[in-house]
Amino acid sequence: MAAAEGRSGEPAEDARVARTRADVARAALEVLTTEGSDAVTHARVAELAGYSKTTLYAHWPGRLDLIAMAIETLGDMPHHELTGDLRADVIAELQVFRNAIDELRLDRILAGMAQWASVEQMAQIRNKVNTDGQHQMYEMLSDRFSGPALEAVVQMLTGVVACPALMYGRLASDDVITAAVDIVLDDGTGRGPQ
Amino acid sequence: MAAAEGRSGEPAEDARVARTRADVARAALEVLTTEGSDAVTHARVAELAGYSKTTLYAHWPGRLDLIAMAIETLGDMPHHELTGDLRADVIAELQVFRNAIDELRLDRILAGMAQWASVEQMAQIRNKVNTDGQHQMYEMLSDRFSGPALEAVVQMLTGVVACPALMYGRLASDDVITAAVDIVLDDGTGRGPQ
Repeated sequence: MAAAEGRSGEPAEDARVARTRADVARAALEVLTTEGSDAVTHARVAELAGYSKTTLYAHWPGRLDLIAMAIETLGDMPHHELTGDLRADVIAELQVFRNAIDELRLDRILAGMAQWASVEQMAQIRNKVNTDGQHQMYEMLSDRFSGPALEAVVQMLTGVVACPALMYGRLASDDVITAAVDIVLDDGTGRGPQ
Repeated sequence: MAAAEGRSGEPAEDARVARTRADVARAALEVLTTEGSDAVTHARVAELAGYSKTTLYAHWPGRLDLIAMAIETLGDMPHHELTGDLRADVIAELQVFRNAIDELRLDRILAGMAQWASVEQMAQIRNKVNTDGQHQMYEMLSDRFSGPALEAVVQMLTGVVACPALMYGRLASDDVITAAVDIVLDDGTGRGPQ
């Protein structure tokens, strides 16, 4: 209560600003994921969020500010909880990624970030989101691979999910994901790791 | 000569329209690859091409028309000329792809196409460009893989080049490309194909 009112009503104003930010960020994310980054304009986001364009321009002068805020709203990337079975864990992690492309439209977010990456602010956000997205793959596979092979394996496994989505709007099937993991881990042949 | 003038000056007018189209397409492609699809507006492209906005609006009413024309200007995707040595051919094909990302900014084109793919016209262009880009990989690898494994291998190898570029603005090194191909083809171990 004391915190909500405070002296001179400052915290109450902070709370209002925070709510505006949350509303606008959510609306910007919805436009970004349903209509693409090109559609993220002050007019469109203001309309959807129920605020005036003037309010949006005052807080977020550039379209990039709206897109950046939308992406930050995503929070941490989803990951599979590890079981210790490498093959099962890698397959499950790729399925989580595939499902996030479907549900969170990560393909549009990835494409939007890539489009805007010539702006340093967006390049940093992109690197942070993608590093967060890939770190568990690096960790899981670093016992088995290192150096260029580790980089190759992580980018290949990311690609088996990301490429069909970005290139054809197609979700990788479980069969294709499993085939990819078996080729990379060389399992099921009794020959063990390289 | 006869063709250039023709009756009622029609072919001459066609030639003028064709030149306008070529100039505008080249300018649109330059904006797309240097500034991203968001920057492809009638005003920006008209300025760079040296035509009026009115001319551009008359021929290409939507921004998507400009972007689509820019991508069609790319023509066929570059490919490596096959030698028959599968490992060397796959490595070289990936290097051609990597270099095209650097020189033609295929990463921006790919991201731009993905961003706009909710529009059917762009989805078709995207599928055509990407099918053209991947068909040689499918052909090269179809002696060795089939079904989900073939799909997995092509998307993984595409990913080893496309993912670092789209996710971090980084070009895949020769070391990483070679490591990827060796993991997929299982060469250098004397164990042959699966």
